[in-house]
Amino acid sequence: MEIAFEKSGGLVPAIIQDNRTGEVLMLGFMNAEALAETQRTREAVFFSRSRNRLWKKGESSGHVLRVLEMRVDCDADALLLRVEPLGPGVCHEGYRSCFFRQIEGDGSVRAVEERTFDPGKVYASGAER
Amino acid sequence: MEIAFEKSGGLVPAIIQDNRTGEVLMLGFMNAEALAETQRTREAVFFSRSRNRLWKKGESSGHVLRVLEMRVDCDADALLLRVEPLGPGVCHEGYRSCFFRQIEGDGSVRAVEERTFDPGKVYASGAER
Repeated sequence: MEIAFEKSGGLVPAIIQDNRTGEVLMLGFMNAEALAETQRTREAVFFSRSRNRLWKKGESSGHVLRVLEMRVDCDADALLLRVEPLGPGVCHEGYRSCFFRQIEGDGSVRAVEERTFDPGKVYASGAER
Repeated sequence: MEIAFEKSGGLVPAIIQDNRTGEVLMLGFMNAEALAETQRTREAVFFSRSRNRLWKKGESSGHVLRVLEMRVDCDADALLLRVEPLGPGVCHEGYRSCFFRQIEGDGSVRAVEERTFDPGKVYASGAER
């Protein structure tokens, strides 16, 4: 089964789920090279659309995602990675999950999780995540 | 907080998670109109890239996704919907989750879930899902 990278310009979304808690932690994009690196190292590597290069999660923070299991969906155009996240959280704003904001009925958003670390102590200004 | 639709050509990925089990069921894409419809009806509506139109999940199968909670990620370019899925499964191949295939170490894939329904009885040939 070939992953359908060409369907969205060479990139497929990769959902990152905490294997222990089931929590969805983040969503990144992978190209074929990022997927191959992830499979080789068993640590999540993404393709950064903003920086236009491969990006290993945790390369500066140390908050690496150890990949325990990989799934692909029926159309082969989305990935699901069950991971063990190292460190207190994956979000550069200091939360366990990047999905810490809830969308209310009126369209406004509010944070509904507690911060688990101080991002200022983990990420140098402009550093990779 | 504005959703960053423009970042990926007007569409953002929307992760669908079973609110009861935590299982990731599928990933779809939403444009601004699909998101507005989802918020208005509290049932998941996507934008189908292959059919180039709005697509309400369950419009023919009846397997509607009742939206209990919506989250947005830190960069406002991905959505997470916690849902109550109606019916035995969301996948047009007859599984609870579209992510029923595991990627093995050698890159091959195999189904690791059991079918929960007969898709031939639910989906007419060529019908919407």
